Amino acid sequence: MELGYEIPARVGQTLDEICTPALIVDLDAFERNVAKMKAYCAHNNIRLRAHAKTHKSSDISRYLIEHGGACGICCQKLSEAEALFRAGITDIFLTNIVVDPVKIDRLVELTKAARIIVCVDDMSNAKALAAAAARAKTVLECVVEIEVGHMICGIPVGSEMVGLAQFIDAAPSLCFSGVQAYQGLAQHTYEYKGRKALLDAAIYKTREAVALLKAEGLNCDIIGGGGTGSHSFETASGVYNELQCGSYIFMDADYFRVQTEDGSLISNYEPSLFLCTTVISSAKPGRAICDAGIKAQSVDSGLPKVYTPAGVTYVKCIDEHGVLTDPDNNLRPNDRVLLIPGHCDPTCNQHDWLVGIRNGLVECIWPITARGKFF
Amino acid sequence: MELGYEIPARVGQTLDEICTPALIVDLDAFERNVAKMKAYCAHNNIRLRAHAKTHKSSDISRYLIEHGGACGICCQKLSEAEALFRAGITDIFLTNIVVDPVKIDRLVELTKAARIIVCVDDMSNAKALAAAAARAKTVLECVVEIEVGHMICGIPVGSEMVGLAQFIDAAPSLCFSGVQAYQGLAQHTYEYKGRKALLDAAIYKTREAVALLKAEGLNCDIIGGGGTGSHSFETASGVYNELQCGSYIFMDADYFRVQTEDGSLISNYEPSLFLCTTVISSAKPGRAICDAGIKAQSVDSGLPKVYTPAGVTYVKCIDEHGVLTDPDNNLRPNDRVLLIPGHCDPTCNQHDWLVGIRNGLVECIWPITARGKFF
Repeated sequence: MELGYEIPARVGQTLDEICTPALIVDLDAFERNVAKMKAYCAHNNIRLRAHAKTHKSSDISRYLIEHGGACGICCQKLSEAEALFRAGITDIFLTNIVVDPVKIDRLVELTKAARIIVCVDDMSNAKALAAAAARAKTVLECVVEIEVGHMICGIPVGSEMVGLAQFIDAAPSLCFSGVQAYQGLAQHTYEYKGRKALLDAAIYKTREAVALLKAEGLNCDIIGGGGTGSHSFETASGVYNELQCGSYIFMDADYFRVQTEDGSLISNYEPSLFLCTTVISSAKPGRAICDAGIKAQSVDSGLPKVYTPAGVTYVKCIDEHGVLTDPDNNLRPNDRVLLIPGHCDPTCNQHDWLVGIRNGLVECIWPITARGKFF
Repeated sequence: MELGYEIPARVGQTLDEICTPALIVDLDAFERNVAKMKAYCAHNNIRLRAHAKTHKSSDISRYLIEHGGACGICCQKLSEAEALFRAGITDIFLTNIVVDPVKIDRLVELTKAARIIVCVDDMSNAKALAAAAARAKTVLECVVEIEVGHMICGIPVGSEMVGLAQFIDAAPSLCFSGVQAYQGLAQHTYEYKGRKALLDAAIYKTREAVALLKAEGLNCDIIGGGGTGSHSFETASGVYNELQCGSYIFMDADYFRVQTEDGSLISNYEPSLFLCTTVISSAKPGRAICDAGIKAQSVDSGLPKVYTPAGVTYVKCIDEHGVLTDPDNNLRPNDRVLLIPGHCDPTCNQHDWLVGIRNGLVECIWPITARGKFF
């Protein structure tokens, strides 16, 4: 068998020729999204460190650095950072905690060839990082991850936090680079008031943390946070200096539920990522079955939304099948249906390729470099 | 960097040395599950065609054929079948519909080197299969997928179904092999009575289909269906002759909610698949954060259940993190936690490796051969 079967499309093919289910990127919409965020950050004088956890692609990482105004990328896992480093990305903020001794050694090794920044929320972890970096005769940049309401990782703002920063600052093999203050809960809080309340609290905590550190002579090169759903708040705060948005390049069905102050939906960004699926059965009236189920997408934030054709709704997601309602019985086997995924980040993580489309034709095929690199 | 970093463990390592999140298999429990199903099918004189959609592993497929009493395997997607065929599996029932012309040609090609059986629920699809097989000068085995209450693929039982079977039987390039009658809804219907009602209806339909076909001189070599949650019903029916169970080898948190007639939980099979995860933060009292989120598992059937340590509960699943409640504050960074995944099939699909453990040590590392092969 031909090895090419592993790749869902070839340059020049039409949408109907793509082997489905496959993730496709509308390149015009993608480029408009990237340009909008670049202009936003330039206008507001805030750095953008685009989060690669969304796309996990070295091609997109490079595009965002070269054309999207990004000063570097964020990663969420060591293996993700390693995969993107191998593909040529050399400025990586690992917005997470690394505790496994073997992983710490791998992390420290990366600092010899790239700018690597990592989060810390625990003194024993800081000591382990310092020892590993000293053994490797290198210096590791650390930011203190603080608790701003997300209740995941993060040390509460206070004296223990200051002590941790001081330890990092004093350790010859570590470099204190600032604070990580990401309020993940806020990203998908649909209602504006609820989102604002979460961000007001996070900004208050972050301001307090920066002031406590400054009082001890510790300046923050990075005061990082902000996602696609919240970044206007962090920007307006005057406290943060780096945004970590990822999803704005693609958007997803859940982000289109997030409302702005006047109750309208967030409209700055367009959907550019689609799950292309094929009808495999229309044996029952009023419904059709397509070939994209749970294995081809994540439904943790709700079902995908049908983009085309009109009148069709994706109503149920099974392991390898999707159920579509088709009241007018228009769909036939082999018809293509485009879905806006419910949640873009974990959906990308399930695929090996992104198929870039322009004017109805395949223009490029990008490997999802860090697919499955969740360790 | 060492390429070995891509593999989460090495033979001889302990659980604490595995790079997490990783899927591990308790080999003793796995082998007991396999032996139980083998004995069950032998005792009840029914064939087992174990479903590979659960594990997607060529090693496990081979083990089930050589030691588990399986007459062959089932696959759910063409790419899955191709991947397992390349790894040496040569008796494959594709329990799904294939409509894309390119995929049909690939499917037909496989028949030249393996026994391949496929489902059909539509006359135009049957004609396309017949034409492709004729062009390739081969014969493709087809079963008619019938609607038994699942409301996914499947033609309603009746005259149109008989016509489809007759067309297949008459086409020189096709071979009529029977009916596919899988009631997927029943597998995870927890309450016994509800499950029985679904199966009673499915068995009634299947019996009717077989009789209608027989009246036209069409005998069914395969009358297939039955999953881990329902197979006792199909077996007892006297109608089905092939079971397609997959999950029994691993089980998952959701299957442990399915009740037997007396209200007790299905207890024949043991959990043998675990998601091994590491605590990365315990900076807040009463909770800990582990490194296994949505990207490392599917939560479509509910959250994973903590297997060890006792007293800990997995309460929230984020993209790359899991939130654990730990009322006694026992967990520390780098501690390992074993989870029973909420849903085994899509969880396996997200991983590249299965780490086999016996007596606390890594004994084997199996690639998930058809990981991501959902097209």
